Amino acid sequence: MSITIPAPADFHVHLRQGEVSELIVPHVRKGGFDLAYVMPNLKPPITSTEQALKYKADLEKIDPSVEYLMTLYLSPELTPDEIRKAAAAGVIGVKSYPRGVTTNSDGGIESYETYYPIFATMEEVGMVLNLHGEVPSDASANVHVLNAEPTFLPHLFKIHEAFPKLRIVLEHATTRAAVEAVKKCGPTVGCSITAHHLDLIVDDWAGQSWNFCKPVAKYPDDREALRAVVREGHPRFFLGSDSAPHPPEAKSTSSPTHACAAGVYTSPILLPLVAHLLESFGALDKLEGFVSTNGRNFYQRPFSSQKMGRESVTLKKVINKRVDEQYFDGKSTLVPFWAGRELNWEIA
Amino acid sequence: MSITIPAPADFHVHLRQGEVSELIVPHVRKGGFDLAYVMPNLKPPITSTEQALKYKADLEKIDPSVEYLMTLYLSPELTPDEIRKAAAAGVIGVKSYPRGVTTNSDGGIESYETYYPIFATMEEVGMVLNLHGEVPSDASANVHVLNAEPTFLPHLFKIHEAFPKLRIVLEHATTRAAVEAVKKCGPTVGCSITAHHLDLIVDDWAGQSWNFCKPVAKYPDDREALRAVVREGHPRFFLGSDSAPHPPEAKSTSSPTHACAAGVYTSPILLPLVAHLLESFGALDKLEGFVSTNGRNFYQRPFSSQKMGRESVTLKKVINKRVDEQYFDGKSTLVPFWAGRELNWEIA
Repeated sequence: MSITIPAPADFHVHLRQGEVSELIVPHVRKGGFDLAYVMPNLKPPITSTEQALKYKADLEKIDPSVEYLMTLYLSPELTPDEIRKAAAAGVIGVKSYPRGVTTNSDGGIESYETYYPIFATMEEVGMVLNLHGEVPSDASANVHVLNAEPTFLPHLFKIHEAFPKLRIVLEHATTRAAVEAVKKCGPTVGCSITAHHLDLIVDDWAGQSWNFCKPVAKYPDDREALRAVVREGHPRFFLGSDSAPHPPEAKSTSSPTHACAAGVYTSPILLPLVAHLLESFGALDKLEGFVSTNGRNFYQRPFSSQKMGRESVTLKKVINKRVDEQYFDGKSTLVPFWAGRELNWEIA
Repeated sequence: MSITIPAPADFHVHLRQGEVSELIVPHVRKGGFDLAYVMPNLKPPITSTEQALKYKADLEKIDPSVEYLMTLYLSPELTPDEIRKAAAAGVIGVKSYPRGVTTNSDGGIESYETYYPIFATMEEVGMVLNLHGEVPSDASANVHVLNAEPTFLPHLFKIHEAFPKLRIVLEHATTRAAVEAVKKCGPTVGCSITAHHLDLIVDDWAGQSWNFCKPVAKYPDDREALRAVVREGHPRFFLGSDSAPHPPEAKSTSSPTHACAAGVYTSPILLPLVAHLLESFGALDKLEGFVSTNGRNFYQRPFSSQKMGRESVTLKKVINKRVDEQYFDGKSTLVPFWAGRELNWEIA
């Protein structure tokens, strides 16, 4: 059995910078993807058009066969003028991180109003707002890693109401509450879902740092809501892997004063993994929509926009194809999600 | 400033076996405690009076100055006759672990009814039932590590109703629901609380395996409920450290296929840590009740039962006393909770 789908697009991926990128970037294509929507959280973060174009050129130098869509990091320095400049240069989105928003004095409630002039300009020029939808933990208000996302959702509604034509993506949704919130919104609000959140629950990262990521995987009922919306084929929900590589020692070892790095590395196995997972919960027939069509439609990136990518990718059903234990290019080592485990699909 | 309290008692501690016990056992007294209520989960578990007495002798050989109260591991092999024999030999309690109970076919709901003849005999001879109050995780029923304890509580009520004179301790409570459940029960139901659950919440063990234990630390509101019941000085709530040492490498390192060990090691710093924590949330005046009086009253172990212990222990207020980074006796190494951090109390 084989499945052929139009060029898959990963609408949320971390490609890092420097030497390790030489190992990471080619894994986009290895994992079956022709488009990478690239996160701007480098050191320093990508806050200007100039930086974004420079970063894009760096990525294209490593692997020119992938289409890179670039983003800026939302911060107080960003201006409406820079937004216009970015849009004109082909930068697609602006990413908001929890620490990128102003915290009011009344206990961790974030306010985006300071960014309204930015959002108004983005709406005007057609840029996309990518929200990391979590509020910072605040023990005094009983906000913690498990309810940080539901607690954020009023902000999504408020921004959507203020800018109904602004395209907004709630990134890496992990909860039933988030799925329901996005469904309630109008056609300008989309939602990315990672592969690993279709697989993991809280029990899986308890004491197991390789499965630890932010947002953390939630309860079984939340995972079921994510699976259900994929199974349903809802057109505003699509794959964004949030593939986030870290050096193996940062993932595997904690000391009493130092926690493990948050992030799961799915890029090199992404399409086979997604096919395997969707098949496991009866959604294989929605693979094309989830990895190819839905996201491209939302982002208005039709397949014809591909300059160098494949027109389609074929997956072949296999018996217990083992995931590599690690990748090593002579300089960097990376360990993928599901290392040593078996997948039932491979790229033909 | 100093505080003197009658001989503290730790009503839940893991002292392990073999070589490593030589490092662990003296830490009971080092941590300020004169009584150790010893868990039976060795390899093989302590399931007979004979084993319990042998284990007690081993512990006394290492440190004869501590009073060891012994327990049996609840398992299908346990008989009413063995219960009578154990009680006559001075064994105090029987510990029930999640895996020690029968799982019915209807989705992870445990049934204790198979043990009712045992409980009836325990009630008759005055033994204590120690419940690890969690049901096994079951994704299909949305049971996970965060709600495993609240989901267990109906079993507590049911056993208590069936055996109202049986003394039951809900061990290492971590949730507001558990605190409220124990309060609702009659005077034969007590509750142990660990030091670390008065300190940690879920955010603290996300990616930080040194803070990973079972039951996992819960939400800020749950921690507040634990602190409040200590602050209230409720007589049926008392310290049981659940101090659970593991080799440092088992705590610090995970691989993609191997999680870190669950458990936090508090024994060697226990009394200063508890004083420090209680002071931090305004409950220092309840220290004596929490570590000395309440548990001894519930277990009917008055201070006069001490044969070799100290009559009292004095804590001295200090400035930033640093916790040892590790303990090493030439053979074993152990790392305590709060390694390298500072406490405001020490044993005089």
